[in-house]
Amino acid sequence: VGGLPAGARVAVVGADAAGMSAAASLRRLRPDLDVVAFEQGPDTSYSMCGIPAYVGGLVADAEDLVVRTPAELRASGIAVHTRTEVVALDSAARRVTVRDLDAGRERDEAYDALVYTAGAHPVTGDLPGVEHGHVVHTLEEGRRLRQVLDARDDIERVAVVGAGYIGLELAEALVRRGLPAVLIDRNPQVMPSLDPAMAAHVERALVDFGVEVRLGESLTGISAAGGRCAAVTTDRATHPADAVVLALGARPRVALAQAAGCAVGSSGALVVDERMRTTVEGIWAAGDCVESRHIVSGGPVNVQLGTHASKQGKVAALDIAADGDGPARFPGVVGTAVTTVCDTEVARTGLSTAEAEQAGIAVAETTFGATARADYLPAPGEVVVRMLAEVGSGRLVGAQLVGTGNVGKRIDVAATWCQLGVRVQDAQLFDLAYAPPFGGVWDLLQVGARKLTRTLGLSPVL
Amino acid sequence: VGGLPAGARVAVVGADAAGMSAAASLRRLRPDLDVVAFEQGPDTSYSMCGIPAYVGGLVADAEDLVVRTPAELRASGIAVHTRTEVVALDSAARRVTVRDLDAGRERDEAYDALVYTAGAHPVTGDLPGVEHGHVVHTLEEGRRLRQVLDARDDIERVAVVGAGYIGLELAEALVRRGLPAVLIDRNPQVMPSLDPAMAAHVERALVDFGVEVRLGESLTGISAAGGRCAAVTTDRATHPADAVVLALGARPRVALAQAAGCAVGSSGALVVDERMRTTVEGIWAAGDCVESRHIVSGGPVNVQLGTHASKQGKVAALDIAADGDGPARFPGVVGTAVTTVCDTEVARTGLSTAEAEQAGIAVAETTFGATARADYLPAPGEVVVRMLAEVGSGRLVGAQLVGTGNVGKRIDVAATWCQLGVRVQDAQLFDLAYAPPFGGVWDLLQVGARKLTRTLGLSPVL
Repeated sequence: VGGLPAGARVAVVGADAAGMSAAASLRRLRPDLDVVAFEQGPDTSYSMCGIPAYVGGLVADAEDLVVRTPAELRASGIAVHTRTEVVALDSAARRVTVRDLDAGRERDEAYDALVYTAGAHPVTGDLPGVEHGHVVHTLEEGRRLRQVLDARDDIERVAVVGAGYIGLELAEALVRRGLPAVLIDRNPQVMPSLDPAMAAHVERALVDFGVEVRLGESLTGISAAGGRCAAVTTDRATHPADAVVLALGARPRVALAQAAGCAVGSSGALVVDERMRTTVEGIWAAGDCVESRHIVSGGPVNVQLGTHASKQGKVAALDIAADGDGPARFPGVVGTAVTTVCDTEVARTGLSTAEAEQAGIAVAETTFGATARADYLPAPGEVVVRMLAEVGSGRLVGAQLVGTGNVGKRIDVAATWCQLGVRVQDAQLFDLAYAPPFGGVWDLLQVGARKLTRTLGLSPVL
Repeated sequence: VGGLPAGARVAVVGADAAGMSAAASLRRLRPDLDVVAFEQGPDTSYSMCGIPAYVGGLVADAEDLVVRTPAELRASGIAVHTRTEVVALDSAARRVTVRDLDAGRERDEAYDALVYTAGAHPVTGDLPGVEHGHVVHTLEEGRRLRQVLDARDDIERVAVVGAGYIGLELAEALVRRGLPAVLIDRNPQVMPSLDPAMAAHVERALVDFGVEVRLGESLTGISAAGGRCAAVTTDRATHPADAVVLALGARPRVALAQAAGCAVGSSGALVVDERMRTTVEGIWAAGDCVESRHIVSGGPVNVQLGTHASKQGKVAALDIAADGDGPARFPGVVGTAVTTVCDTEVARTGLSTAEAEQAGIAVAETTFGATARADYLPAPGEVVVRMLAEVGSGRLVGAQLVGTGNVGKRIDVAATWCQLGVRVQDAQLFDLAYAPPFGGVWDLLQVGARKLTRTLGLSPVL
């Protein structure tokens, strides 16, 4: 790594959160560099997480989700080529081959440094009829689904396969726009990132909202009639459905980088160091396609979230722009996530019980109900809290919140504790905000910290 | 300090949050001890912070605010004497003199250890007509005000003097029940614990809600007609008012302890160590009457909040129960507070600009507007964020939030940063929760951390 000379060329593969945050930072840090980006789709820099809200009609236009259009990016000095797929990467020659998808032509583009932010591709499998299913991984795919839903007035029921964040949000969005939805997953619970007891509360919220939930059923195919989806079949039932959405998760898109010699880790994502350098000289990577260190477990994980993508892109840019080691280091992740499902907020951080087990971390756990506001106030809100702490040390290992009453972002307190290795016995006495509209004199995370301190035989038991 | 023998007697002065958390802990830790408590008023263990909601009618009965009644406390083995004032404290003889306020009789009560949790007394001053003003520091006082408001149908306007937390909450409560309220304060801003620019947003929320706000006016008296309040006069105007509430703050109630030799600090509250021991052998203190260490400034402060009282009471109990040094240490406070005023959430932690100046801490500051949800969602909520960090180190020194969209408890993240001395340059890259219903890919506190990192010339600038 060394300082790139003025006029050197940085190529960015992919023009969403990671890529465009890298590109924008590079423009700011080194206006003397030439920054070019290649994006397969027609859109740039959009909120992938906002797609369910758009499909549901809560957001009027797909364009509302776009933070910076290709034209805006170009005006800022980033040469974005949309509908342009990178089809080969030669790291020795520092050259990519790109295909203009509209013209059907390929050309070579040289680079001095490359930022690989190819994202992830949705898992669909190869079951019979899978081509009749929608995926909503890109804004373009979201547009297609919404167009179908808007245009067809014969849709009586939609099936959503996959009960992760996106699947749940989509099922809710469908019911919200008046379409009966059946949510199918082969797992016995929704949201595998939650412990089963917590996931059960989310499932209840879905059912109460009107979503039909079918767990423990494996998709076996999609059957069509007249070229249109008619039903999804599982190993246990046939569910009539006029449209089907496959929300089965996404795998890091690593093929080109891997072919160019970049190491892929056990998570299936690209290995990068704290400065987002891959194992190949001249190639940095960021976003959904990279592997991060989980700060609590120490192990490698692939977490696909715009917030990490944006940060990692900036870290990569700082390193590319530096003459020597860049000043920023991505510290890793603690597995924080939040969503709203059917008016219920769901949040988690750190490790679940299963993840702690896998990481060989012995934990004690507590699960309890609480109110989000003082219980003597009207509409106090209900929340279920689950917290895990390490046997011996008392370090907070994970926390999960499910409830009403605006509790979702409270997970950030637990996330900070996980990030810094805070021990529950110490956290009990932290100075957290108290007022009746926000709970009791003991913050709910401190109630959990007290319970865990006691369970773990640590001191002081308050 | 040594282990108290079985049957030893612990006397508790005051039966609210601090005293009763100490008493309950003692009962749990040392059921062999005799725990007796003396309380001047008729109530025990109630939420003082809930009084404005009760006065406003949001809470139906005063009893709803009571966590544990005298009868419940007695059933749990705590010998509570209500309507019983402690009038003398002899620390050498380990004896208090108490007066039964109903019978008018005094008696001596011996103790082996004493927990002094006398709270604070409201400031009223001695201006002409002050006896016509209500204070609402105790539940009993809250009951009296509510009775007056409920009983009299000739009240056209109420004056609230003092624009701190309680004054603001009361003014809101009055307007909410249909009573025009004028809020008067001699300071040029509401909520002196906020920086002026932030307080201005709170003032606007009050005005928009229908509260008449008169700042920079000093109370000069209360005039009565026919034995009833008729107007409040200030150095600038006369405000007709059929009732007046004095919410001028409260001073630690230390007289008896001070007379018994307990040191009083510069904050006007009792000096205690981390185990809540006063400077006099055999006397512990907790709650509104004690001085705490401010973790950010290192200086002494008196913070009157139920959450500290409850924690300090437990710390004291653990020390009294221990044979030697108790296992718990109260670490101090960081000045965290939250409230809801006129549908606007207001939160702060750490030091304000004025407090930082006073503490000799050089800071950089940032103030900016943000949305509480992604800006493409309906009703994204508005929030103003202010953050201060130390020049040189980058340590977060304080944060303030004012806004809609359920942002109040987000202050706890900043509070944890203040508590642990987290530097803004590090906090930028923490793993905080992101989803569109909760904001942008950059959490608003991390937006502030980025701005401060840049302003302070620290690294990395993301």
